[in-house]
Amino acid sequence: MEFIKGGVVAPKGFLASGMHVGVKTRKMDKKDLALIYSVKPAVAAAVFTRNVVKASPVLLSMENIGSGTAQAIIANSGNANACAPMGKENALRMCTLAAKELGIGASEVLVASTGVIGQTLKISVIEEGIPELVGKLSSDESASDDAAKAIMTTDTVKKELALKTVIGGKEVRLGGISKGSGMIHPNMGTMLCFITTDCAITSEMLDLALKEVTRTTFNRISVDGDTSTNDSCFILANGEAGNEEISSPGEAYEIFRIALETLCREIARKMAKDGEGAKHLITCTVSGAEDEESAEKLSKSIISSTLTKAAIFGSDANWGRVLCAMGYSGVSFDPGNVSVSFKSSFGTVEVCKDGKGLDFDEDLAKKILSEDEVEILVSLGLEGGASCTCWGCDITYDYIRINGDYRT
Amino acid sequence: MEFIKGGVVAPKGFLASGMHVGVKTRKMDKKDLALIYSVKPAVAAAVFTRNVVKASPVLLSMENIGSGTAQAIIANSGNANACAPMGKENALRMCTLAAKELGIGASEVLVASTGVIGQTLKISVIEEGIPELVGKLSSDESASDDAAKAIMTTDTVKKELALKTVIGGKEVRLGGISKGSGMIHPNMGTMLCFITTDCAITSEMLDLALKEVTRTTFNRISVDGDTSTNDSCFILANGEAGNEEISSPGEAYEIFRIALETLCREIARKMAKDGEGAKHLITCTVSGAEDEESAEKLSKSIISSTLTKAAIFGSDANWGRVLCAMGYSGVSFDPGNVSVSFKSSFGTVEVCKDGKGLDFDEDLAKKILSEDEVEILVSLGLEGGASCTCWGCDITYDYIRINGDYRT
Repeated sequence: MEFIKGGVVAPKGFLASGMHVGVKTRKMDKKDLALIYSVKPAVAAAVFTRNVVKASPVLLSMENIGSGTAQAIIANSGNANACAPMGKENALRMCTLAAKELGIGASEVLVASTGVIGQTLKISVIEEGIPELVGKLSSDESASDDAAKAIMTTDTVKKELALKTVIGGKEVRLGGISKGSGMIHPNMGTMLCFITTDCAITSEMLDLALKEVTRTTFNRISVDGDTSTNDSCFILANGEAGNEEISSPGEAYEIFRIALETLCREIARKMAKDGEGAKHLITCTVSGAEDEESAEKLSKSIISSTLTKAAIFGSDANWGRVLCAMGYSGVSFDPGNVSVSFKSSFGTVEVCKDGKGLDFDEDLAKKILSEDEVEILVSLGLEGGASCTCWGCDITYDYIRINGDYRT
Repeated sequence: MEFIKGGVVAPKGFLASGMHVGVKTRKMDKKDLALIYSVKPAVAAAVFTRNVVKASPVLLSMENIGSGTAQAIIANSGNANACAPMGKENALRMCTLAAKELGIGASEVLVASTGVIGQTLKISVIEEGIPELVGKLSSDESASDDAAKAIMTTDTVKKELALKTVIGGKEVRLGGISKGSGMIHPNMGTMLCFITTDCAITSEMLDLALKEVTRTTFNRISVDGDTSTNDSCFILANGEAGNEEISSPGEAYEIFRIALETLCREIARKMAKDGEGAKHLITCTVSGAEDEESAEKLSKSIISSTLTKAAIFGSDANWGRVLCAMGYSGVSFDPGNVSVSFKSSFGTVEVCKDGKGLDFDEDLAKKILSEDEVEILVSLGLEGGASCTCWGCDITYDYIRINGDYRT
């Protein structure tokens, strides 16, 4: 397995494009409409937000994914098309217009939107833009780059990744683009993430792989505890790699699943690291737990704690916040067996052992927590126990600034 | 029922004091040790944090409240005595030293601590201070003021309240002091709150009243979603009012319960308003719900949403955040029936009706949301349905500043 360039056009038979059509009104240079297209019909799978309030494009894509196939993904940024007048009609319109221009069926198009809630989507500018968007479709690296940029909102960096592996003697590629900055939280398809692969795989096995991988990657990141109305993750597999179709569990499936997990984990980490206003990526591993579920709950509670996030922002080794967050996680454990360390490329410092504070080097701790990527290592003390890693970010002045004035 | 002065010494037979002994090391003028004393043994009740990690004073007070009586409360700020070396011993020491000086049994003393987690409590300065603290005990208004100040940490205003009512022809008084700024969240005894009353009531009925009232007041505020290791609410009732002892439900109990609820609601509002760094008190009422439980879950989800809090900080009428927070609350509802308004002393603006955005006056909305106290009114559309009000505050740059550097 090896990381490669090219994002969603790295796998064979995929084209992409992205451009500014005017959904984002204020900034003419900001791309706001993205398209991904498979030259052949592809099998497809998706995971969606579990929020009761679902945006219109989410509802429509849930319908369209029912067939287990799709050939294109169209997505806009700047407007979420959620709780918006004409929401359903406009989501359908996006699919229909793209499908017509691509010469495929409207139900073969998945649609996604991200941006402000409650405002009518300017479908006219999308309609006008689609012919050019389709015309721009390309397998050039820059095409994936354009698409990745066109789904960004408050993201500060583009999230794009690709890798290759070998399945049954054939080179198989996977590529992904995503956006996700605020509103990221466990228990959902987390923000927008579009994945392409040329692997030959049945829709059942693709669905299984996406669900398995979502649980251990996207569902283990948290930026601010809010779950969005729009979060969607789509994967299209067009079989162009020529490998023997994966139709059941086994070695080939495992190789594919691990490749997908690697891709998604790296994308998830990128999203957590680029959490709105974030200065630190926080990786929290809870080990020595009775089972993985407990370890996951504890780890999520720590990375979701606003007070822990604020402490990490201040590079303050305030491990009391960590224990406190564990304590209200809903998991039962003995505080007297808990140990906590902070770690980064600068070093490691143990701050709590058997539930009691250690007399640690505050200067060293400050330096460790001043690195961009910091780790919180927690042990519940059970030898050979289960463990789980989750990812989050700190909360900063910029988070408040961004979200105090998001709509204007 | 009428609000009066005097805080915890307003009820007959209660004395208080507060002073600086040196638990807070950096600021010599900051009080850090408080004492409340009833001249007669009193019946007592308490609610505590539900955090699995409980501070040593919480564990000891849980034990001491078992008898249903207490005569004194001692509390320090500056150190939480949680996950701290010698925690159990030092909590017990505080009770023993106070009891000895007061000439009562150690198990008649309730103890509470608030401040940094994981550091050894400087029991020696508390020991040295206790004789003077007991010597200062007074029924003067300033004594309650001293005690209220001695339990403050990052609080910016002192929280103190008292009221009087009439039960069975006798004037009955209730008084309370509290501290609570960060880490306030539903489902707990919420921070430190000490209540005194001269009402004659059995410990069973006092316990019932405190639990009922906690559910509808303290458990309906949220500052940042974190629940502390130390939160405790104590109430002492010494019977000095001379009313016929309340020993069963009925009119007298109802009058007492309503008085206690009024006191606690106002204290809860004060705590929410003084949330760390907060600029706005947010009152959220969800109505038209199927039952109170659903309304409460929805309301809590809204006031706990970091994104909603950031929007209110920016006086931004971003009602999409409100709907989104409702959507991940775990309550099932039809988004198509939801209406949302923002309200303050400046006026009211409806921003969403039947799940769709309205074309509202943005300038008016900005002005409404620029007031210190703002309301979010949500209806689920069920006529005659249940409702629930919860209180929270916005998240600000100061919250991050305070918690990014809390320990140093």
